[in-house]
Amino acid sequence: MKSIDLNSDLGESFGPWKMGEDSEMLSIVTSANVACGFHAGDPAGILRTLEAARKNNVRVGAHIGYRDLVGFGRRNMDPTDSELTGDAIYQIGALMGLAKAAGIKVVYVKPHGALYNTIAHDMRQAKAVINAIKAVEPSLVLMALAGSTLIPFAREAGLVVVAEAFADRAYKSDGTLLSRREKGAVLSDPAVVAERMVKFVETGKITAIDGKEISLDAQSICLHGDSPSAVLMARAVKAGLEKAGVSLKPFVD
Amino acid sequence: MKSIDLNSDLGESFGPWKMGEDSEMLSIVTSANVACGFHAGDPAGILRTLEAARKNNVRVGAHIGYRDLVGFGRRNMDPTDSELTGDAIYQIGALMGLAKAAGIKVVYVKPHGALYNTIAHDMRQAKAVINAIKAVEPSLVLMALAGSTLIPFAREAGLVVVAEAFADRAYKSDGTLLSRREKGAVLSDPAVVAERMVKFVETGKITAIDGKEISLDAQSICLHGDSPSAVLMARAVKAGLEKAGVSLKPFVD
Amino acid sequence: MKSIDLNSDLGESFGPWKMGEDSEMLSIVTSANVACGFHAGDPAGILRTLEAARKNNVRVGAHIGYRDLVGFGRRNMDPTDSELTGDAIYQIGALMGLAKAAGIKVVYVKPHGALYNTIAHDMRQAKAVINAIKAVEPSLVLMALAGSTLIPFAREAGLVVVAEAFADRAYKSDGTLLSRREKGAVLSDPAVVAERMVKFVETGKITAIDGKEISLDAQSICLHGDSPSAVLMARAVKAGLEKAGVSLKPFVD
Amino acid sequence: MKSIDLNSDLGESFGPWKMGEDSEMLSIVTSANVACGFHAGDPAGILRTLEAARKNNVRVGAHIGYRDLVGFGRRNMDPTDSELTGDAIYQIGALMGLAKAAGIKVVYVKPHGALYNTIAHDMRQAKAVINAIKAVEPSLVLMALAGSTLIPFAREAGLVVVAEAFADRAYKSDGTLLSRREKGAVLSDPAVVAERMVKFVETGKITAIDGKEISLDAQSICLHGDSPSAVLMARAVKAGLEKAGVSLKPFVD
Repeated sequence: MKSIDLNSDLGESFGPWKMGEDSEMLSIVTSANVACGFHAGDPAGILRTLEAARKNNVRVGAHIGYRDLVGFGRRNMDPTDSELTGDAIYQIGALMGLAKAAGIKVVYVKPHGALYNTIAHDMRQAKAVINAIKAVEPSLVLMALAGSTLIPFAREAGLVVVAEAFADRAYKSDGTLLSRREKGAVLSDPAVVAERMVKFVETGKITAIDGKEISLDAQSICLHGDSPSAVLMARAVKAGLEKAGVSLKPFVD
Repeated sequence: MKSIDLNSDLGESFGPWKMGEDSEMLSIVTSANVACGFHAGDPAGILRTLEAARKNNVRVGAHIGYRDLVGFGRRNMDPTDSELTGDAIYQIGALMGLAKAAGIKVVYVKPHGALYNTIAHDMRQAKAVINAIKAVEPSLVLMALAGSTLIPFAREAGLVVVAEAFADRAYKSDGTLLSRREKGAVLSDPAVVAERMVKFVETGKITAIDGKEISLDAQSICLHGDSPSAVLMARAVKAGLEKAGVSLKPFVD
Repeated sequence: MKSIDLNSDLGESFGPWKMGEDSEMLSIVTSANVACGFHAGDPAGILRTLEAARKNNVRVGAHIGYRDLVGFGRRNMDPTDSELTGDAIYQIGALMGLAKAAGIKVVYVKPHGALYNTIAHDMRQAKAVINAIKAVEPSLVLMALAGSTLIPFAREAGLVVVAEAFADRAYKSDGTLLSRREKGAVLSDPAVVAERMVKFVETGKITAIDGKEISLDAQSICLHGDSPSAVLMARAVKAGLEKAGVSLKPFVD
Repeated sequence: MKSIDLNSDLGESFGPWKMGEDSEMLSIVTSANVACGFHAGDPAGILRTLEAARKNNVRVGAHIGYRDLVGFGRRNMDPTDSELTGDAIYQIGALMGLAKAAGIKVVYVKPHGALYNTIAHDMRQAKAVINAIKAVEPSLVLMALAGSTLIPFAREAGLVVVAEAFADRAYKSDGTLLSRREKGAVLSDPAVVAERMVKFVETGKITAIDGKEISLDAQSICLHGDSPSAVLMARAVKAGLEKAGVSLKPFVD
């Protein structure tokens, strides 16, 4: 039987500001990318998300980002190597501390937003993040964009890497994501997305925006959970996969 | 032979702003209270301080504070229990992560500034900090003001506590510190301070501001290191103690 | 014909986090307390709120707060006089700049959250805020809690002061607000609240929690707008007042 | 008689962290670029710097930067147009408020660090800054790098622009600054720098790093003041210019 991991970004509220449907999503996903305070997340709120993850038997990853709260870590930045390595270790350590308090372990790292996109191709910043993981806990798995330069680079550096596909994003025929600025970049029909993901898990193939079939090597699917409609889509993907006999389980035990 | 621990606040630079004579102080003290980013300290700078602590064989404590960078954690604040517990775990975890990267362990927690003063007598906030320590790593020692209500309270809660005296501060005859706003609250003559600390270590007694001899139960002495003249005083205290045959060593191995 | 001002807290989104129903509320209120970036509000979002206020012909006040984003300015703090005066001037100046860009003027100042509550009775912090207003623009009106010590104090200091009542809060018979921690402190029935405000505007009286009739001297009514149900209540108050022949207009032209 | 303006970055302390020799520099320069809180500067400290500027009859400019305190505004960032325009207006407005409280006016804007360097050549970000100035106070002069693309672009957009040269930086023969990463990029001999600036003011020419004479059109000279040795150099430049009969005066009255 085929199996796949479902992941989502959680713990992204901040102080009085709520974001995301954490409770709902924790009943759907098998892995939670939990914010670490730099792009989102305050300690008390992160702790609540971690406790809920434990209760739902969901795996936890450190969703580390640039230090840019108002920009939600979505703006390109240019930290030095030592700044980026320090910031990454700090965030991972903080989440490990909160996770220990919640009775759960951090098992992977997924960079967020602009950092995620940058290290997919910028090996200087990638190296700084890899060095952080190796320094603080080398057994942490790195979650990265399927098909990106980062994956072989991080494996070469000694990390275990898991690749992810995006459920609701269009792909180009070279295997990269169509920019959000392009028409059709984000898919919104739950049935279409669910069917697409079932096919992907069963065949390893996705239909690119130009109609070509492309192969994607990914062990996890990223689902958005930042709105009620995103939750509906996540539920549809889960239901579709289960109906197709796909086992939903974390990429690590 | 008598022995005592010497501690100082370190790692308090932030970005381009330098504070403290960390290199000098690490050659003097046996324990370093390292900032955790909320009142001071940026990750890359904290990491450098931790690496220097390891090279100097100095013990490391998490110097946790209120989330008030511009106020340097010196202003009273009123966080809820869950906010304070979360903030404390976050800071301790972040420092543990950076310490692991530096090849050293965090062995104690010393609250900073207004938080330090508040939990000396406010058992609600004290409880929130104690809960944080117990949740993230119950073996961490809590460093607290000698004679404060916090000490029996934290021991009752199951923590190991070490008490500290202040080298350059005047005491009242009830064993509390004379407020910095009072005349004579801060001592500035290195020879006087050194002699005072030698007497304290040898007899357990300090002369209060009104001339009375008071007993103080403390296993560590706090030295300031935020200016060249503070370093001179720290050196004088160290030299005085060594000349008197006092062994300077960490309160934990 | 009787008239009254209706005010509400707006511009409290921050980066990716949305808060409040600004568009709805700007069609209801006559005065907008606009966040200035310290407890909430980012510059681009504040600017959009100011532009919408201008289009709705709503008066704008600087909703200044403590520098405590994660705590939303709701936690007591203890700034020095010069810190608080500086922080207040900075926030007022920033809002005046954004308002000028939006083609509207800032005409009053309403402190937020813990600062609002503190200066209702703490004349040291009140003085620091008053000094800020006098230094940056003495013609700015101060909006304050009806019945508070602050009102005569600020008038004595030379400021024009407008008092406000709270539509959905219970009052004690001494004219102060019942603490939110007490049962019945917050009223939730739109019809009851609307009727209560009509009576208040017509007679100057409100029924306290213990049943006594108390007099309240207020020229503005504060409406919450941070949720769809809050908007429904705000609409009910507006409709009730208009039906009773009360003219809704700003307290300043 | 020839005349020139001398400017320096001031008000860059933050909370407990001191930076720069503001008092010394205010006795040397004719224009002060005052930090606005985003890359450096807290309101109470900025206010003190502004009051000192008034006493020294020094002109004040808003030294606006990216929202990156820990990076001191020196790291490239990628804000959207509305974010950058909003951030610039907010900072300029805040400084205008503090300046009014200090009894002085803000008369120009000088972007800081990475923002300064970016808008010298990136006309998208330049446009966002120019729009901010035009929206909040179009009479504010923009201070920009001599020879940069920004200067004609901003003049075309309707701003008054003043160009500046750097006293202690080496120039390439195309008129741009030699990167700080290159050998010889920063000059450290006060006598050499003073002589270089006297020649520049008298002839409009500077010797580039490759020995060629280049022409530079600048009405102000930027002096660093962030260390005692920088102050010595600033004094040497001032003394050299005065000895050569150059009048030191602000570029605006």
